[in-house]
Amino acid sequence: MIKVYVLYPKNSGATFDMDYYLTKHMPMVGERLGPALKGMTVDHGLAGGQPGTDAAYGVITTLRFDSVDAFQNAFIPQAAEIQGDIPRFTNIAPTVQISDVKM
Amino acid sequence: MIKVYVLYPKNSGATFDMDYYLTKHMPMVGERLGPALKGMTVDHGLAGGQPGTDAAYGVITTLRFDSVDAFQNAFIPQAAEIQGDIPRFTNIAPTVQISDVKM
Repeated sequence: MIKVYVLYPKNSGATFDMDYYLTKHMPMVGERLGPALKGMTVDHGLAGGQPGTDAAYGVITTLRFDSVDAFQNAFIPQAAEIQGDIPRFTNIAPTVQISDVKM
Repeated sequence: MIKVYVLYPKNSGATFDMDYYLTKHMPMVGERLGPALKGMTVDHGLAGGQPGTDAAYGVITTLRFDSVDAFQNAFIPQAAEIQGDIPRFTNIAPTVQISDVKM
C-alpha cells in the first residue's frame, strides 16, 4: 500500500480556497482516479509543534493506492485535468511525494 | 478530530533506524499516550512527485486525537520520555504540526 502526499506550504502571499478544494477539487479527483484510489485524507494546518509557531503546511492531503503502478496507471491519463484545476484554488506549488505505508 | 504530524526531512547525513522506530519507539508512544490516542500512521518516503526526484521526507508519522486539548493533556506529561527516545533512532530534528481533519 502506498500514499501520495500533497503538501501545500504556508508561504507568505499564499492563497488557498478550502471550500473549493473540499467541495469541487477533491470530489473531481476521486471520480477521475476511480476504484484504484483506496482512500483520501485532507488535513488543515492549525499550528506548529512549539507554542506560538505556525504550521509549516496549510494543507496536507494523502491519496492511497495499492502500489506505485496502480497510482501511475490511474493518475497519468487524468494528470492534465487534475493539475489544470490547481490554479482555481491556490497559487501554491505543492510538494509531492510517494510513501510506503509502514503502520 | 486533529492530527499531529511528525515529518522527518531527508537531509544529507540524516540517519533513521526504521526497525527501532516501528518496533520500539511507536509502540512506546502508543502505550504512553493511552486511550487519548485514536490512531497512528507511519509512512516511509520512496520518491518525489517528479521522475528521478527524492522524497522530501524520509518518514511522515501522524497521531490522531479528538482535540488539541486531548493531545496536550496526553502528551505533555510524557513529553520528556517520548522526546528523549528520539536520539535512539535518528539525528534528524522533525518538523511537527497540528492539523484539523477535514476529510
